[in-house]
Amino acid sequence: MSKKIMILPGDGIGPEIVEQAVAVLETVDKKFDLGLSFEQGLIGGAAIDAHGEPLTDAQLEAAGKCDAVLLGAVGGPKWDQLERHIRPEKGLLKIRSGLGLYANLRPAILYPQLAEASSLKPEVVSGLDILIVRELTGGIYFGEPRGIRTLENGEKQGFNTYVYSESEIERIARTAFEAARKRKGKLCSVDKANVLEVTVLWREVLDRLAPEYPDVELSHMYVDNAAMQLVRAPKQFDVVVTGNMFGDILSDAAAMLTGSIGMLPSASLNETGFGLYEPCHGSAPDIAGQGIANPLATILSAAMMLRYSLNLGEAADAIEAAVSKVLDQGLRTADIYTEGCKKVSTAEMGTAVTEAL
Amino acid sequence: MSKKIMILPGDGIGPEIVEQAVAVLETVDKKFDLGLSFEQGLIGGAAIDAHGEPLTDAQLEAAGKCDAVLLGAVGGPKWDQLERHIRPEKGLLKIRSGLGLYANLRPAILYPQLAEASSLKPEVVSGLDILIVRELTGGIYFGEPRGIRTLENGEKQGFNTYVYSESEIERIARTAFEAARKRKGKLCSVDKANVLEVTVLWREVLDRLAPEYPDVELSHMYVDNAAMQLVRAPKQFDVVVTGNMFGDILSDAAAMLTGSIGMLPSASLNETGFGLYEPCHGSAPDIAGQGIANPLATILSAAMMLRYSLNLGEAADAIEAAVSKVLDQGLRTADIYTEGCKKVSTAEMGTAVTEAL
Ligand SMILES: CC(C)[C@H](C(=O)O)[C@@H](O)C(=O)O
Ligand SMILES: CC(C)[C@H](C(=O)O)[C@@H](O)C(=O)O
Repeated sequence: MSKKIMILPGDGIGPEIVEQAVAVLETVDKKFDLGLSFEQGLIGGAAIDAHGEPLTDAQLEAAGKCDAVLLGAVGGPKWDQLERHIRPEKGLLKIRSGLGLYANLRPAILYPQLAEASSLKPEVVSGLDILIVRELTGGIYFGEPRGIRTLENGEKQGFNTYVYSESEIERIARTAFEAARKRKGKLCSVDKANVLEVTVLWREVLDRLAPEYPDVELSHMYVDNAAMQLVRAPKQFDVVVTGNMFGDILSDAAAMLTGSIGMLPSASLNETGFGLYEPCHGSAPDIAGQGIANPLATILSAAMMLRYSLNLGEAADAIEAAVSKVLDQGLRTADIYTEGCKKVSTAEMGTAVTEAL
Repeated sequence: MSKKIMILPGDGIGPEIVEQAVAVLETVDKKFDLGLSFEQGLIGGAAIDAHGEPLTDAQLEAAGKCDAVLLGAVGGPKWDQLERHIRPEKGLLKIRSGLGLYANLRPAILYPQLAEASSLKPEVVSGLDILIVRELTGGIYFGEPRGIRTLENGEKQGFNTYVYSESEIERIARTAFEAARKRKGKLCSVDKANVLEVTVLWREVLDRLAPEYPDVELSHMYVDNAAMQLVRAPKQFDVVVTGNMFGDILSDAAAMLTGSIGMLPSASLNETGFGLYEPCHGSAPDIAGQGIANPLATILSAAMMLRYSLNLGEAADAIEAAVSKVLDQGLRTADIYTEGCKKVSTAEMGTAVTEAL
């Protein structure tokens, strides 16, 4: 009954925050006797440095053989000048696609203890709890043809293809309907069906499936309006489902509404529930190595992993309760610090969570 | 020296708000002896009802022969069930493309009198003044191939093409560099160059042009980060330039930061300075015909028109000063009403601006 977890710290603050999350996992492992084991691997810039590519096929295969993957973050200025196909981000895209992780779940939750951190007025965001379900292995991220060509008149032209088939839409739609069913029963599908044919099909598939989920109230919204409504009145949303590109944009906007993107975990799942878990924030090269990054998003990603992929809900609850407790104690890393609280380092925050367990 | 303006009221609240803007134009016309004349035309649902299509070729040609176009808004539930190619929005896309209006300027300004209307904290948005420069006749909005096809396995697949050539990027980039030069000298170009080849080319072209504008500080930002930064710290931006789709999303988010999208005008220009002017908001079918819509965005669009296309800066200044004056007087339509102010109708607001002139 042992569960193997692939640890991919990545770049920038990745190693620091992942270290704390692993310490937390080791603590719940002992406490609840979960039988976890860990394997360390390389992705992103770290993999480029070691192997000349951001994710080796061997690493991809090894990750797929584990029960779940915990990732830090990838990228940084050191690798910005490389050819595009060996940039750190390509490692992330390769693991998502290679393991079929089409369902990206990005919760945007406002922690009551951190209500002041938001740039929005308290009454607009208090109690905010949105789940963005983003399609992660299709759309314009992976569509072919793509590239840069030279036209007959000698000028260059760049092109990408935004493409979805019915089955791709259907499987992510079902993930979203089912998530809505377990929450407040509201699903908003975001598209640009007044301009883009691919999203006309998107809307059709959602409408076709709706009768199978009579307990879920489905609505549709254009992406420009969704961006506006997220700013104006975000609490109108429960679950939002959308494609890869719109999901990238809207999930970051939604995360930032909470003012504490350093707190937000994410899960990327395949058909069998296998998943990759990572914080919503990036590799923050500007503060890497200083020991001041917030490890909580990664710790909460580890909790999501226990719940969704390893079916260890009790241990997940324990981690989430411990995080809430350290926030109640007033401990804050620099990114979420406000006056009157106690500023702590990455390691101090991790240790506090471990102790709260 | 007569200047002919094509008036396209469109649908929903379009006719009500345009009526007030025309009254304001007539007033400055008399006051400054501008020699304006007006021609009324049809677009959107109104054109579908009359001619079976959202913009006739004759109407397009007539608009092109005028010195500028003032548009209300298009669309509404009445036409939502029509075939896609005769939906009201297609009229808008056709006039943009048909008249070569590639440069869409969308200012997001917080009026000090309306500071409370924003959902963001006052310190985050006070003094906000961003100009979004959106490419309007290319990108995924117009890219070919596009459509919905049936695959060999019988399932449907939707597809669109995101495409830009160097010359398309260059002309919108120049518009943006020049706008930045007249403002605070900061230009942020938004792309997704870590994933999309078409935006790799976008970034290359911006970088290539930058040395020609040494007085402008150019930066690049990924679109997901831009959506985040608009929420977190919008005042970091001066001019933002981006493609059609990202511009659609970001300009709406930016507009909503001000809390008063009913105040925001926009201009869509071609190479010669000819332009179409319209409010940033839509046709608001829910409140159409009630006489409560805010005409100020359209009135301010008329001012932009005088300044950019008709070279009548003095008259434009006068309109903008008049709008500021009625706000100072505490007059508010329902959308921007806060306690202590005087709630007025569409017509009352228009008349107040006329009188302030
Ligand atoms: C790093 C980048 C390729 C990635 C994406 O666009 O998906 C990131 O922004 C994310 O959202 O996980
Ligand atoms: C109505 C629609 C086609 C249009 C667009 O997407 O460009 C609108 O949202 C806008 O921004 O003017």
